[in-house]
Amino acid sequence: MSADAVLNRIDETLPEALARLMELLRIPSISTDPAWAADCDRAADWLVADLAAMGFDASKRPTPGHPMVVAHSGGTAGGPRLLFYGHYDVQPVDPLDLWDRPPFEPAIEDTPAGKVIRGRGSSDDKGQLMTFLEACRAWKAVHGSLPGNITIFLEGEEESGSPSLVPFLRENAGELRADIALICDTGLFQSRTPAIVTMLRGLLGEEVVIRGPSKDLHSGMYGGVAVNPARVLARIIAGLHDETGRITVPGFYDGVEELPEAIRAQWQALGFDHAAFLGEVGLSHPAGEQDRTPLEMIWSRPTCEVNGIWGGYTGEGFKTVLPAEAHAKISFRLVAGQDPHVLREAFRAHVRAQLPPDCTAEFLDHGASPASIMEIGHPAFEAARGALGEEWGVEAAYAGCGGSIPVAGYFKTMLGMDSMLIGFGRDDDALHSPNEKYDLECFHKGIRSWARVLDRLRG
Amino acid sequence: MSADAVLNRIDETLPEALARLMELLRIPSISTDPAWAADCDRAADWLVADLAAMGFDASKRPTPGHPMVVAHSGGTAGGPRLLFYGHYDVQPVDPLDLWDRPPFEPAIEDTPAGKVIRGRGSSDDKGQLMTFLEACRAWKAVHGSLPGNITIFLEGEEESGSPSLVPFLRENAGELRADIALICDTGLFQSRTPAIVTMLRGLLGEEVVIRGPSKDLHSGMYGGVAVNPARVLARIIAGLHDETGRITVPGFYDGVEELPEAIRAQWQALGFDHAAFLGEVGLSHPAGEQDRTPLEMIWSRPTCEVNGIWGGYTGEGFKTVLPAEAHAKISFRLVAGQDPHVLREAFRAHVRAQLPPDCTAEFLDHGASPASIMEIGHPAFEAARGALGEEWGVEAAYAGCGGSIPVAGYFKTMLGMDSMLIGFGRDDDALHSPNEKYDLECFHKGIRSWARVLDRLRG
Repeated sequence: MSADAVLNRIDETLPEALARLMELLRIPSISTDPAWAADCDRAADWLVADLAAMGFDASKRPTPGHPMVVAHSGGTAGGPRLLFYGHYDVQPVDPLDLWDRPPFEPAIEDTPAGKVIRGRGSSDDKGQLMTFLEACRAWKAVHGSLPGNITIFLEGEEESGSPSLVPFLRENAGELRADIALICDTGLFQSRTPAIVTMLRGLLGEEVVIRGPSKDLHSGMYGGVAVNPARVLARIIAGLHDETGRITVPGFYDGVEELPEAIRAQWQALGFDHAAFLGEVGLSHPAGEQDRTPLEMIWSRPTCEVNGIWGGYTGEGFKTVLPAEAHAKISFRLVAGQDPHVLREAFRAHVRAQLPPDCTAEFLDHGASPASIMEIGHPAFEAARGALGEEWGVEAAYAGCGGSIPVAGYFKTMLGMDSMLIGFGRDDDALHSPNEKYDLECFHKGIRSWARVLDRLRG
Repeated sequence: MSADAVLNRIDETLPEALARLMELLRIPSISTDPAWAADCDRAADWLVADLAAMGFDASKRPTPGHPMVVAHSGGTAGGPRLLFYGHYDVQPVDPLDLWDRPPFEPAIEDTPAGKVIRGRGSSDDKGQLMTFLEACRAWKAVHGSLPGNITIFLEGEEESGSPSLVPFLRENAGELRADIALICDTGLFQSRTPAIVTMLRGLLGEEVVIRGPSKDLHSGMYGGVAVNPARVLARIIAGLHDETGRITVPGFYDGVEELPEAIRAQWQALGFDHAAFLGEVGLSHPAGEQDRTPLEMIWSRPTCEVNGIWGGYTGEGFKTVLPAEAHAKISFRLVAGQDPHVLREAFRAHVRAQLPPDCTAEFLDHGASPASIMEIGHPAFEAARGALGEEWGVEAAYAGCGGSIPVAGYFKTMLGMDSMLIGFGRDDDALHSPNEKYDLECFHKGIRSWARVLDRLRG
């Protein structure tokens, strides 16, 4: 069977694959800080060169920000058209003193849990995107050509809000459109179960500023008698959830449907260990809606959270000031059936309706994206699920994802294609944090997983 | 009548008195910042020299912080023993760019409302303390000696929490004890009515830290299911007041008595313009207890206010973090009958009782001082009230004060004497703010007021 030869090749050439990943990890392609722009460019160049060496028609494509990398495998008559997406930019590395090694001097480390690739980007997303490239490389080495018409599309701004993504997709829709997209930027389910993410929550970001007095006041002179915006804000936030944990914004749950029984049963069968999930971060009691399981809440229920709050004197010591204004950053995770733009207005109206006399509210828009639900009826999903189960020895889960991966939504709405989100990260990879790592096992079996997926998709 | 000669002398020598004040204002005696320690020392030296030139036995007295100035007039058999208190240190001047002139290059400015002395400390408290020194100087010039045994006690740390005050009072109690203390650090009532402050609120300062998860969490992964300390804090703060504006801490109002009818009637007669008071800071509706007048709330009712709140991501843009902790600085203004130490424990127990599972609260003590109520039965009060009424042509008010002037409490508890708080500041003096000023009229009539008070107090 052809997959075996490719899998053998992957096993034999793992040291070379690792060496390539290390080269890429050594490039500090931090996208948020303009100081690293040349390094982002260098990472794009490295990828173009690597893809070209594999025989792709690869190019670096300029944007107003960091460049995109686009590479085409060339036609294989009859094979599927696949678009693979990953991102070569990485998160900043602060606080640097919490790293046990320089973040851009990666290494293989032995840990009690096995060998890990340590360094910024090892998991998010350089290590993950290279699993697909290495699978293509091994396939090509064995067969001489790829099992379909494959386009590689790599972004350099994912960690800084993807400002160039939508215009680029609009301008290059014809070039990028495929039968299905493959995205490698997610994780395994609870460490050993492969997963295809089929539900992604949307995100609505708001910032609210409550203003009252024209300036900060002395609490001895005005305390008690002048309205205090920090107290007004606290009252509004406290009122955003009722006693059962439900969100009180009028109309918030309109259009939100209950989870289909089949999905609920499948999720129950996953045996999600919510005690371990919470225990990892020092908690023992699920908060939130009282009548929902933790997994259901994370994957399929909308939320409202305070991400930041500030107002008045926040320095050392004490200052008896009544603040003139108070601020909060508030975000909502959204599910299918919720329109972020409608809910933004509903939230704002809800806040305004609670303002006492003399107070105003100003709102800042921090973005909105709707939830995505994949059509798992597409035969590629069952094919990939079978391939993953074969590699990992455990049936792959159709999982939800609490986070938001906007690119999957754009692929759907702008290019008309579903995405299969398949990734090999683990919960303890320390994404966005010091000492980021990617398990060597995940890298190796990730490459093998993609080889098996390609084998099944070629039809 | 002897007061007339002294008043004439004050009028004739006003230019010299102003020149002296200007000299003192030119010394940048900011007490909070160690960079200005030598200037604080220089201000103390200047006052010692000025008092010595008037015939006082004056000395600079070291403390672990900035020095005290103590000066004795020497004995006058049969006259009253008076202790005068003021402070020579001033507030910092930031933000400097909002000043219309350099803060330590004072000048007399013409304004539509009359001549003002502009500069840091002009009102708080150098201009005010000099009204008493100039009254003594004029009295001495006319009569050859002062009308009692007068001790001048000037502090250099009032704007930085008076860390040396209590130890100094303890060690020098015998030297400082008098029949009554005179404190010049307050204001007129609504610009033209002289006032003796007889009720000072106490202050209880607390900082609370609510902690939940062991680290900041990703709101996509944990939002909705992990407890959010910012939401917990908001709920606790929102619950500190009920719908009628009363504070909900159990036992908070125990021992708080209703205002005596006589005082209430006198306050009503003052015709406090609450619309103007609120309008000055951009407000039109009194907040707070629904069944209380604004003046009653400010002068005689306890309060609970949020002075600062912070947690999570507060920078530019957006970060979908669930904060591991959230903080608030909360202060209570206290009235007679409330024990700050009992209420601190009641507040902490009240917060702890509301913590959801997995949350803890840590508390920081930011000080406590009880309210002070002066014994206006002491004959000095009626004497001073008569003197002030004579100078200003309006009956002086026995006023409350929303703020806290801890020194008056220490004089009572440590030296066993009441304080008469008489001052000539106006609400628009911009204390602690850029462009601080003291009206020339207030300086002039302030000196004359003290001369009349001294005349009445000599018995």
